[in-house]
Amino acid sequence: MKTQPLDGVTVLDFGQVYNGPYCGFLLAQAGARVIKVESLMGETLRARGAKSAASYAFALLNTNKECITLNIKTDAGQTLLKRMAAEVDVVFENFAPGTMDKYGIGAVDLRALNPRLIYASSTGYGVAAGPYRDYLGMDITLQAIAGVMSITGEDGGPPLKTAAAFADFIAGTHLYAGIVSALFAREQSGAGATVDISMQDCVFPTLATAMGSYYVAGEQMPRAGNRHPGRALAPYNVYEATDGHVAIICIREGHWRKLCLAMGTPELAEDERFVTTADRAAHIDEVDEIVGAWTRRHTRAEIFATAQAHGVICAPVQNLDEVAHDPHLLARGSVEMRAHPQLGEIAQLHTPLRFRDIDPPSLTDVPALGHDTARVLAELAGVDDAELERLRRADAV
Amino acid sequence: MKTQPLDGVTVLDFGQVYNGPYCGFLLAQAGARVIKVESLMGETLRARGAKSAASYAFALLNTNKECITLNIKTDAGQTLLKRMAAEVDVVFENFAPGTMDKYGIGAVDLRALNPRLIYASSTGYGVAAGPYRDYLGMDITLQAIAGVMSITGEDGGPPLKTAAAFADFIAGTHLYAGIVSALFAREQSGAGATVDISMQDCVFPTLATAMGSYYVAGEQMPRAGNRHPGRALAPYNVYEATDGHVAIICIREGHWRKLCLAMGTPELAEDERFVTTADRAAHIDEVDEIVGAWTRRHTRAEIFATAQAHGVICAPVQNLDEVAHDPHLLARGSVEMRAHPQLGEIAQLHTPLRFRDIDPPSLTDVPALGHDTARVLAELAGVDDAELERLRRADAV
Repeated sequence: MKTQPLDGVTVLDFGQVYNGPYCGFLLAQAGARVIKVESLMGETLRARGAKSAASYAFALLNTNKECITLNIKTDAGQTLLKRMAAEVDVVFENFAPGTMDKYGIGAVDLRALNPRLIYASSTGYGVAAGPYRDYLGMDITLQAIAGVMSITGEDGGPPLKTAAAFADFIAGTHLYAGIVSALFAREQSGAGATVDISMQDCVFPTLATAMGSYYVAGEQMPRAGNRHPGRALAPYNVYEATDGHVAIICIREGHWRKLCLAMGTPELAEDERFVTTADRAAHIDEVDEIVGAWTRRHTRAEIFATAQAHGVICAPVQNLDEVAHDPHLLARGSVEMRAHPQLGEIAQLHTPLRFRDIDPPSLTDVPALGHDTARVLAELAGVDDAELERLRRADAV
Repeated sequence: MKTQPLDGVTVLDFGQVYNGPYCGFLLAQAGARVIKVESLMGETLRARGAKSAASYAFALLNTNKECITLNIKTDAGQTLLKRMAAEVDVVFENFAPGTMDKYGIGAVDLRALNPRLIYASSTGYGVAAGPYRDYLGMDITLQAIAGVMSITGEDGGPPLKTAAAFADFIAGTHLYAGIVSALFAREQSGAGATVDISMQDCVFPTLATAMGSYYVAGEQMPRAGNRHPGRALAPYNVYEATDGHVAIICIREGHWRKLCLAMGTPELAEDERFVTTADRAAHIDEVDEIVGAWTRRHTRAEIFATAQAHGVICAPVQNLDEVAHDPHLLARGSVEMRAHPQLGEIAQLHTPLRFRDIDPPSLTDVPALGHDTARVLAELAGVDDAELERLRRADAV
């Protein structure tokens, strides 16, 4: 691979917030030309503006894109999009279901104008079929309906979300995956496709352990904090260290024997209470007590290094400051510290889609709202200065 | 798109547990021929066997695959893999870092035999560079080191994981995305690639809201339960209903006005305490009290229907039983009830990569360990009956 994998692909990115924009981020960092299309107000996160949490996410997710405005509520804006759709490879969006169809610029409309076009959407529930196809969804509501909250939290405590917006990001990753699958298929067939990603679908498989435990028990197990959802594995928990916490998991008998060595108590590997997975699950409190007694005597860094040196799966619980300055993310080139106009130095991500053959492109700042409108419209829709002026007066761009 | 997008692509899937096997699941459901390669003991989840949570996940993730055994610790097994690698498009694995290299069958070795080969791996930290490149990782330890636990849980409570194994699944999705990106690139260049996915990289962007709030505040905010990580949006929480809980989020002023209508209290939209996002964030307890007073009078289903009818982003907190029988997942064809030998009827997933142009293939049962060994080795490595017998005696297959 001597060039970026999506070199030569042109995309119109109608993404908003996290889901769609993350897809556009992956496309742009994979070498596609990604044109972010915003309303005249700017995308939701840009509009929140100023020194806000949104401004961090906006910088993170919209690097390496060009930015144009287009008012799809106007006839002129719709016409412009149709002209551009004939010239590009991909149009994607994560609007409320039916938004693009309502304006006559949905998958059916645009693909009729360009049979090679890939039209992709990601919504809470997918738009193809089913009672919730028109329903709105965001990360927190998908964590609710897809079962994540019911299994997260402490025994006896309320259902909890994780503050990691993973429903959004896993859907955005699937959106990228669907688009690139369709691009690959088009190489053979010459035909475009309509990609329909449902956040609810994407979250479902992440329940695997909990759902398996539910089928084994015949009922849902109580929430298990940091333990195995079915309490079927031990050690599998978060343990106190002198300076915070560490996570340790043993999924095979060999891991337990190695942990006993790491703890300096090889004789425990012979203790009949703990020999097999079933034995340790039956003595889960004693296992956790033994491991905790070891971890409470050491720092996270000591435990991490000792455990990994012994082949034990372990890591420190890091806070955000530590994550933003993680030595591995920096050494790997995954995270780069960059100046942000409101927030100072921020940790920005390069694509997780890494190839040993080629490095991802350098990160760029997000252009101002509409910065690339004139140039892109000239190029993709043949708009000259006079027409641009008319479009601006009509609030179309 | 008249055929499955990856029709004609052949893959050797060395996946274990969730991360790799989910990638193989996506490939198989996208039409690739996926050959699951297991040790003579069987893959970790198969080996756990019997009526366990693992047996659910094993069925879920290994549908539509062929199953062969191969002992990569033997010379004969390594030779066989080299012969097959010359015939296939993709080899991927999520072993401990360096496993394949140790046996002389890593990316460099196999790509030297087949310049068109795509070799892909997913590990805790990526294998290209950095101090943790050789370290072991699993979902719970990645949730720890990548910051997820530090932002999940209640204010004053301990750091918590989510029981949704999203670090594994988001990495498996990226692994698929990296492979298909490389397949697309190969259509132009004819050259293969080495894909290097780090779970840590994949989790990083999911912190967007929390990391943004950290930069705004200049320090990490206390854990916020189900509220916005920076307490900058309201309503944004989980509220009690008569029969459980619902999640509601308002990210724009319009959402709040619509919620006021849905609650039957349109006058609240004019209340000066709640007009703007900043106003509501400043009165977050009052906002939550008002919304909770409404939700406590209704069932989850009533709130869900009323809210969505008004354009408010809302969903019920569903338990696993409800998720497994979710009317939308069933109507959309995302989930299908299938018989499992140990667990009875289980909810199995079709691919979340959905195309309006074509349905995914029917789900199949996972073949028995080594069920397809003879046929696949004959086809991809020219192994005849006599050689197969020698290989079996040498514990190579």
